[in-house]
Amino acid sequence: MTETPWDNATFLARLREVGERSYHDKHPFHRLMNRGQLSPEAIRGWVINRFYYQTNIPIKDAAILSNCPHHEIRRLWIYRIVEHDGTQGEEGGIEAWLRLGTACGVPREEMLSGREVVPAVRYAVDAYVHFARTQPWPVAVASSLTELFAPDLMAKRLEAFQTHYQWVELWGFDYFNRRLTQARKDSQGALELTLKYCSTVELQKAAVQALVFKCDLLWAILDGIERKYTPSEPPLTS
Amino acid sequence: MTETPWDNATFLARLREVGERSYHDKHPFHRLMNRGQLSPEAIRGWVINRFYYQTNIPIKDAAILSNCPHHEIRRLWIYRIVEHDGTQGEEGGIEAWLRLGTACGVPREEMLSGREVVPAVRYAVDAYVHFARTQPWPVAVASSLTELFAPDLMAKRLEAFQTHYQWVELWGFDYFNRRLTQARKDSQGALELTLKYCSTVELQKAAVQALVFKCDLLWAILDGIERKYTPSEPPLTS
Repeated sequence: MTETPWDNATFLARLREVGERSYHDKHPFHRLMNRGQLSPEAIRGWVINRFYYQTNIPIKDAAILSNCPHHEIRRLWIYRIVEHDGTQGEEGGIEAWLRLGTACGVPREEMLSGREVVPAVRYAVDAYVHFARTQPWPVAVASSLTELFAPDLMAKRLEAFQTHYQWVELWGFDYFNRRLTQARKDSQGALELTLKYCSTVELQKAAVQALVFKCDLLWAILDGIERKYTPSEPPLTS
Repeated sequence: MTETPWDNATFLARLREVGERSYHDKHPFHRLMNRGQLSPEAIRGWVINRFYYQTNIPIKDAAILSNCPHHEIRRLWIYRIVEHDGTQGEEGGIEAWLRLGTACGVPREEMLSGREVVPAVRYAVDAYVHFARTQPWPVAVASSLTELFAPDLMAKRLEAFQTHYQWVELWGFDYFNRRLTQARKDSQGALELTLKYCSTVELQKAAVQALVFKCDLLWAILDGIERKYTPSEPPLTS
């Protein structure tokens, strides 16, 4: 017997529950960041490592596109790639994040080299790309819903940087400014697709699990960054 | 010892050789088409089956995008998806091919259903998508070079349709008209990327093989269509 799909309100509540429990806005590293308690080295480490995530987002979105057989849905999704990669005339999110690096004192070639990327960050990001390549496209779309759960994360971050990290050049904040409005548009669009195309209870459950997976990997990214760039426990004495 | 890469002239000559030998402009079905010797049923069969190829092109291109780590190259490639899928304001190649179907008397829902697609066509097209998903992106790009070898194929086809198949509504030829200029732009762009990024002799050889593979699959598509829609040999007598 086929189980009846949840109604939209139930489905949305279960998705929200995941975000409320485990979105990375609650990670200790983000809390330190927003309280202004990170060293310049930790901020730079975050910017460098998070760039590996940024560079893989269009690859993840192209994987979703490549798994989606409906051209009218691909038309809705493709702007995400353009937003990130930019066009000939207009630079995108990747370029904006590179400028954030420069504003923090990380040279462009250092950012592009990926030398400083923590292995744990690399694994988490690669897992995200692999997930998008291998899961049904509506489930991969659901994994993009995280931004829905903290619409003010970017505003808080921008405020934190302007208040506590004044050594970062102001013109570096383009990326944050871009995302202020874009994140809301992105997550609304992804939510509409998720509610519509995760139309069986199996797909609905997979969508909830996709969000759990996404929250886990965002959390793991911050774990890896925290471990490398913030003071650890005092060394064990013999 | 590493083998020295071919110079551009040698590489291009080897690519051209493949096209000259086995591009599908020489397939008997295409020859019949251009001579005006296909029945309406065969034309409709070709339009229906070729639509399966059309619908998979953006999926193939998104797979290439998803395998390409350079955002400046993704920016060059992404327009192909937009050309095919269209945007909210402007319909793309898929919609134009649907109109070609209507102009030939194949209802839109018949085209979209895929019911009439010959298994051999399906396998060949699916092999193309799989190739793009699994090969290095410069090799997958090389498989797009086929149009380079018959820049006048579309012009000849358009002429043949206007001359021999006047039962097809003229407004159905949008797709052919679009491709008249687009095909040249596409293949020039793909050629530049192939020459630049297939930079080892291994990748150059793989690029030549990619073209062989592509010519083979285009040929197999026509074999499948020919088998179903053109008169076969007289039945064996016992």
